[in-house]
Amino acid sequence: MREAHDFCGLFGIVGDPDAVIKTYHGLYSLQHRGQESAGIVASDGTSFNVHKGMGLVADVFSRATLERLKAPMAIGHVRYSTTGSSTPQNAQPLVAEGAIGPIAVAHNGNLVNSGRLHAELEAHGSIFQTTVDSEIILHLIAHPDNQGRPDAIARALRRISGAFSLLFLTRDGVVAARDPNGFRPLCLGRVGAAWVVASETCAFDLIKAEYVRDVEPGEIVHITRAGLRSERFVPAAETRPSMCVFEHVYFARPDSRVFGDTVHLVRMRLGAQLAVEHPVDADLVMAVPDSGNSAAMGFAARSGIPYEQGFIRNHYVGRTFIQPTQGARDSEVEIKLNIVRDVVKGKRVVVVDDSIVRGTTARSRVKALRGCGVREVHLRVSCPPLRHPCFYGIDFPDPRQLIANGRSVAEIRDFLGLDSLGYLSIDGMLTAARAAPPEHFCTACYSGKYPVKVEDGTRKEIFER
Amino acid sequence: MREAHDFCGLFGIVGDPDAVIKTYHGLYSLQHRGQESAGIVASDGTSFNVHKGMGLVADVFSRATLERLKAPMAIGHVRYSTTGSSTPQNAQPLVAEGAIGPIAVAHNGNLVNSGRLHAELEAHGSIFQTTVDSEIILHLIAHPDNQGRPDAIARALRRISGAFSLLFLTRDGVVAARDPNGFRPLCLGRVGAAWVVASETCAFDLIKAEYVRDVEPGEIVHITRAGLRSERFVPAAETRPSMCVFEHVYFARPDSRVFGDTVHLVRMRLGAQLAVEHPVDADLVMAVPDSGNSAAMGFAARSGIPYEQGFIRNHYVGRTFIQPTQGARDSEVEIKLNIVRDVVKGKRVVVVDDSIVRGTTARSRVKALRGCGVREVHLRVSCPPLRHPCFYGIDFPDPRQLIANGRSVAEIRDFLGLDSLGYLSIDGMLTAARAAPPEHFCTACYSGKYPVKVEDGTRKEIFER
Amino acid sequence: MREAHDFCGLFGIVGDPDAVIKTYHGLYSLQHRGQESAGIVASDGTSFNVHKGMGLVADVFSRATLERLKAPMAIGHVRYSTTGSSTPQNAQPLVAEGAIGPIAVAHNGNLVNSGRLHAELEAHGSIFQTTVDSEIILHLIAHPDNQGRPDAIARALRRISGAFSLLFLTRDGVVAARDPNGFRPLCLGRVGAAWVVASETCAFDLIKAEYVRDVEPGEIVHITRAGLRSERFVPAAETRPSMCVFEHVYFARPDSRVFGDTVHLVRMRLGAQLAVEHPVDADLVMAVPDSGNSAAMGFAARSGIPYEQGFIRNHYVGRTFIQPTQGARDSEVEIKLNIVRDVVKGKRVVVVDDSIVRGTTARSRVKALRGCGVREVHLRVSCPPLRHPCFYGIDFPDPRQLIANGRSVAEIRDFLGLDSLGYLSIDGMLTAARAAPPEHFCTACYSGKYPVKVEDGTRKEIFER
Amino acid sequence: MREAHDFCGLFGIVGDPDAVIKTYHGLYSLQHRGQESAGIVASDGTSFNVHKGMGLVADVFSRATLERLKAPMAIGHVRYSTTGSSTPQNAQPLVAEGAIGPIAVAHNGNLVNSGRLHAELEAHGSIFQTTVDSEIILHLIAHPDNQGRPDAIARALRRISGAFSLLFLTRDGVVAARDPNGFRPLCLGRVGAAWVVASETCAFDLIKAEYVRDVEPGEIVHITRAGLRSERFVPAAETRPSMCVFEHVYFARPDSRVFGDTVHLVRMRLGAQLAVEHPVDADLVMAVPDSGNSAAMGFAARSGIPYEQGFIRNHYVGRTFIQPTQGARDSEVEIKLNIVRDVVKGKRVVVVDDSIVRGTTARSRVKALRGCGVREVHLRVSCPPLRHPCFYGIDFPDPRQLIANGRSVAEIRDFLGLDSLGYLSIDGMLTAARAAPPEHFCTACYSGKYPVKVEDGTRKEIFER
Repeated sequence: MREAHDFCGLFGIVGDPDAVIKTYHGLYSLQHRGQESAGIVASDGTSFNVHKGMGLVADVFSRATLERLKAPMAIGHVRYSTTGSSTPQNAQPLVAEGAIGPIAVAHNGNLVNSGRLHAELEAHGSIFQTTVDSEIILHLIAHPDNQGRPDAIARALRRISGAFSLLFLTRDGVVAARDPNGFRPLCLGRVGAAWVVASETCAFDLIKAEYVRDVEPGEIVHITRAGLRSERFVPAAETRPSMCVFEHVYFARPDSRVFGDTVHLVRMRLGAQLAVEHPVDADLVMAVPDSGNSAAMGFAARSGIPYEQGFIRNHYVGRTFIQPTQGARDSEVEIKLNIVRDVVKGKRVVVVDDSIVRGTTARSRVKALRGCGVREVHLRVSCPPLRHPCFYGIDFPDPRQLIANGRSVAEIRDFLGLDSLGYLSIDGMLTAARAAPPEHFCTACYSGKYPVKVEDGTRKEIFER
Repeated sequence: MREAHDFCGLFGIVGDPDAVIKTYHGLYSLQHRGQESAGIVASDGTSFNVHKGMGLVADVFSRATLERLKAPMAIGHVRYSTTGSSTPQNAQPLVAEGAIGPIAVAHNGNLVNSGRLHAELEAHGSIFQTTVDSEIILHLIAHPDNQGRPDAIARALRRISGAFSLLFLTRDGVVAARDPNGFRPLCLGRVGAAWVVASETCAFDLIKAEYVRDVEPGEIVHITRAGLRSERFVPAAETRPSMCVFEHVYFARPDSRVFGDTVHLVRMRLGAQLAVEHPVDADLVMAVPDSGNSAAMGFAARSGIPYEQGFIRNHYVGRTFIQPTQGARDSEVEIKLNIVRDVVKGKRVVVVDDSIVRGTTARSRVKALRGCGVREVHLRVSCPPLRHPCFYGIDFPDPRQLIANGRSVAEIRDFLGLDSLGYLSIDGMLTAARAAPPEHFCTACYSGKYPVKVEDGTRKEIFER
Repeated sequence: MREAHDFCGLFGIVGDPDAVIKTYHGLYSLQHRGQESAGIVASDGTSFNVHKGMGLVADVFSRATLERLKAPMAIGHVRYSTTGSSTPQNAQPLVAEGAIGPIAVAHNGNLVNSGRLHAELEAHGSIFQTTVDSEIILHLIAHPDNQGRPDAIARALRRISGAFSLLFLTRDGVVAARDPNGFRPLCLGRVGAAWVVASETCAFDLIKAEYVRDVEPGEIVHITRAGLRSERFVPAAETRPSMCVFEHVYFARPDSRVFGDTVHLVRMRLGAQLAVEHPVDADLVMAVPDSGNSAAMGFAARSGIPYEQGFIRNHYVGRTFIQPTQGARDSEVEIKLNIVRDVVKGKRVVVVDDSIVRGTTARSRVKALRGCGVREVHLRVSCPPLRHPCFYGIDFPDPRQLIANGRSVAEIRDFLGLDSLGYLSIDGMLTAARAAPPEHFCTACYSGKYPVKVEDGTRKEIFER
Repeated sequence: MREAHDFCGLFGIVGDPDAVIKTYHGLYSLQHRGQESAGIVASDGTSFNVHKGMGLVADVFSRATLERLKAPMAIGHVRYSTTGSSTPQNAQPLVAEGAIGPIAVAHNGNLVNSGRLHAELEAHGSIFQTTVDSEIILHLIAHPDNQGRPDAIARALRRISGAFSLLFLTRDGVVAARDPNGFRPLCLGRVGAAWVVASETCAFDLIKAEYVRDVEPGEIVHITRAGLRSERFVPAAETRPSMCVFEHVYFARPDSRVFGDTVHLVRMRLGAQLAVEHPVDADLVMAVPDSGNSAAMGFAARSGIPYEQGFIRNHYVGRTFIQPTQGARDSEVEIKLNIVRDVVKGKRVVVVDDSIVRGTTARSRVKALRGCGVREVHLRVSCPPLRHPCFYGIDFPDPRQLIANGRSVAEIRDFLGLDSLGYLSIDGMLTAARAAPPEHFCTACYSGKYPVKVEDGTRKEIFER
């Protein structure tokens, strides 16, 4: 599926003469977490330099830009957002100057009490120049109540609720923080004498950094040239982990470790569990590449049905594929994946996908498989039906557009034109993500159980836009 | 001269279905006041849409962008600034949301108490996301002291001092204001049922608007669909006009009316006065085109010496003229103006220029004229020697780079390789700009007499950068 | 007028380590002769490197490109053409390899026997990859009849008729040639040890080259590192000069010498003669800038009526001026020139323009002047009415679109809304262009007298497209 | 491997109102055959319109361009070439006008007698404006010997030797031809009433065309609105098929049918055969994605060793990946593929790649695997060692840069740092490509046996550049 989008990827580093180019490489590795804008702020402890732009990391930054930014500490951000608010003004990191001095912030997640805080800050006289949550956090830190206090950031973070993995850049270094639920990942690593922090460990591999540990839910890590200092803004005992299981299902890169587990291996187990829950008699198992590859391999291994390559992905697909007519969308689906006709013709195939959002793409693909003479199409989905909005940082479409919203599995099967359809159960999914106990994951988009109360302002805003 | 730069041009309009395209045309006409960034904010009374970009008006806006912005009221801005702070973040109009609702501001001028206000606001918890003065004004308006008060803008403006012609866009309409000294121009006009406001009247001509009157020093004009409402934030009796005479000498377009006079005609009189103060026996008068044209014509008419076209301007000169070697700058001067050899050869020529800043360009041109066989070169400058920094919105180079700083006229003449050199006197200049009494003009850059006290913070900031 | 266009500008140089950057500067100076494409071919005597592109010289070439081309000899070209054939394929110089080795050609002018030659060459087996005349010339040079002959180029040139100023680049150097009528200018100059050749002398000024002489009608000049060698492909006695008077009237830059005279001075005399032929009682004389400036100054000096600046040209006008509505064209006219209202209001004005093509722009301007309260508008045009097509390199619109075609002067005056209209007479024009005898100029576009027979193929092609 | 490159991909269509957009889609599918330039020529039987540009299909064509080209017949081309000759001038299709009328040509392959033909044509007076072989073919067709003859193209093709799959566009339609050896693929298909022709069948799938048959070696197919007409320029009995086996090994897309076989299935068999020839005791089989995927799956299936995903490909890798230092190349290798550490750690792995060219990339990857704690690395290559240049259209680097040139397999193994290395044998490879008898394939790059004599001129040219 390609219809849901995580908001962001984060990278930070302190104490490396090549901090900026390493940040660039880190963002390059995190590109899958946001393709709409990219930005880096760098500092030598005195001045701050920033470069942000709309587009991919490779397009936003030139060598000249990286050289201009050159400094020993930096944070970077990649971002996706819905069309309305996808503006240059909203590109991160945000940079501001207040009583605390210059400060930059990069945010992955979504606050659920922003409406109330916004009103409170406006009454105090604050003005907002963006529509991103992160700006609220800067205002809180700069508030007179927190000025001159060493724990200004901790005090500010105690005021916000929701999902937030955060990186700040100050004159002293980088500050990394993660909400008490640990919705979004955030990892610490080392390369030479420098400390690095990133949304996923795949960013460490490219720059040859070693993974050290995750930033803990409720923890603030201050990284300065003097080293690392940990602080808690919520005591460990009061945190209730509810990590986003969708990171494992779809978002994170398979070669990353997040939440203490290698994503590819989790997905293999999701696929294996799927084979247990929804067995089928078939000739071959094939993935919807590339996001379904790992689960399909797990399904094949467990079921004993051969793994085959029935879809070929076109690697040159860019943004500007021009349709025969504006209305026709099938070609766009087909330019991305082509079927290997001689592999599937006359066969009973199991297609493994990671998730189904609106169902339109899946429907086109089933139709295309039928057109190639496939005898039976059995779709296996490596997570449960998506039925509820996410308020913690995943940008699903309006729930009314979710195919599973208000439809039974049988109805979905018929809509998609399948011979059979099997979704993984919530329990099965949590069993596969076994590095943490089941209750440590957030399953709100499947179950509707929201671990952190969503305030009215937030909910309304999301539905009104 | 092309080495000094005004900071900005402003345009606003309320009550026209084509408000956005008229703003685009207005900015196009004001392009000479700022070539570095351009921006338009438009509103239908509910939502605000903004588009800003680095570069010329013609490059920043496409038809699609203008159509997306379409709304019945809008303000726009063109801007020049020094390299350091020429960033997308600083492009205007600034847009923010505060207790007063959404508000945008466009500013022409420079505050002289910004350091103190900045410190005070930071203590209150304000954060700054740009380094432009205009942001301070937004913070002042949003301050709790002003919330809910109909005179919030007036109260805010009473806090700032320096040069400011300002346009605000709110949900109700456009608010135009001018500092009590009236340093920068700001004109009101009418087109059909709509009111327009612009830095210069040349913006009215293109959209076929009628000039009505200037916004008065110390006045706030509220333009809504209901019409015009005037308010004073400083009583007329307390204002002391000190209009920037350099607008007449160089900045404003010759076809504009500013400060109650047509610029071309003022320049003709400057040239005539120059002929009286510094007569010379010569064969022809020629201008440094185009900024010296009017004064040269005035000099020729008064002196009886024929006006000739000794320099030809190349109309295709853009930013990217590549030099033979990085060091050589002469060609860049010469690509802009070429000499008509047969006009000047063997002649005694009077060259009329509007001003001399660093003197390097003038020196190259004198050398080039000598190379074409000119017998005598007499330079006449239609203003006095530039010796002092401007703190009210003109971006001269560091005073140490001004050729007239610490040099006598005789020394400048020798440096430039001239047969004679004559600068217009301050009195002569003010006599020529006769629409207002002499004491109503600011002559700080010539005389060092600053009509509004410049606070230490401001002065320091400027010299440190 | 801005509705007629010359096809091209040429520049060539041999024997300078900075040949390429000098060619770039030369083309920059010749930009007014063609704004649609630009190209440079450079050679070290062995390999040929080329760079061509659509757009202005400043946009087509980067420093990196110029450095890649670096070589001691080069030719360059700027070009304008009608939309249909304005394609990258047709950008010049053309480069080809044939029996003679690698050869490049740049052409200014238009052949009038191309249809016949084209047919003959196709019968021989030639294939054409462009639709520009210059390609025919390359085929003729490579023809077996000319292979191995030192006078191959002369033999080829004897086959073509029409207007052609040509530059070739071969392994030996640059070859410059001019048709026996000398329709288009072509000048030789020197800079240091190098020889240069250009369409106009303004290209010499920028690179500090000395003008030496014109390439003669019917002459071929071979420029090699060994020096200059002259050859005639038509004996001097058989040439009949018919130089394009329109170069003096409009095309050439005023600071250039072409056809033995400084253009600005010729235009001054055209204006003076116009004052003699069409005197008028008026308050001021103003030019349509910048092309009418020189003639207006001549008119003012002769008539004694003061020269004034009634129009101000906007220097930031680019291609992308967006209209309020697609249909309205008036704003586009007005954005280029604005009227200085206080100069013209209540006055009887003489407007001097160099020529009128379609008349639509002139009509808009007269209307705008009336709108500013001008009492009388007297238009004086510094050439006769344009009534006939040019087959020698000037791209006028279809004769049916020429306002003077089939209309009397009185009818034109009424169409334009003038109080009076005066065109210069053919005799008056030729008197003013006095460096050559009247019969040495081509006046075909005014008189319909074509000095070189135009073959049917050519004529048809032009009218069919 | 990504260091060898096919020269081109071809697409043509006649008789479809959407011919141009189908050509665009066809080229999009063939993008893997050439990423350097793309072009389409379209015709309505009278006029020809062309658009070509440097870059990817998606970047070269806009909707506006496709609409401008709209016509019922078209040919298109994508191209890769070495740097030297990668110029806009050499972008295909070439378009020319000769005695035969307008004609365009698109070529996949390489001629081996071009030097001789070039000399002969120059002697006849031909001039060459590109350095691509295809231009020679156009000259031959236009030669007087062939003018007016219905078999002009056949006569021209009999003069050339080497590898050529060709598409011509004339006023009558598309002409497709394939050399007597059938080095490069060329397939015929149908969609609705239209005929299509393409390098690979994957181009048919996207536009929903049915594959009909291959163009035969030595055959010319004339496609007009009247239908298909076949002609032979070499009798079937005289053709000796020598199809490029490297198309199966690496170039063609796995979902295409070429030479009568589905590429993915051939590669599966290559992998299976490799498992037979070079068995190894290991824990897992992994591919170098994506080109090694099919062979790795075949190897895994035959050997019984589990197939795993040890490398993850980064889908956002573009051209502009900026290195930490200019010299370091490792990061560039690693940004493309990242290792899933927990999959390979402590394991004995079989890595299957399709081929090894220079060996530098392979070496980096082996080093990276070792760095992740892999116990043993066994590389299996699904073709024999590459040791000889290709003169038939594959652009390998200079033979001196091929790792297998002059090195034994043991030496290569040591150079790459492997535990074991196995190349597929020539016989094994031809057995796997079983749709045609072994002697019907060209194996020159492995065996040095060239099925068509390479003339000296060709060979020299290739080595001199």
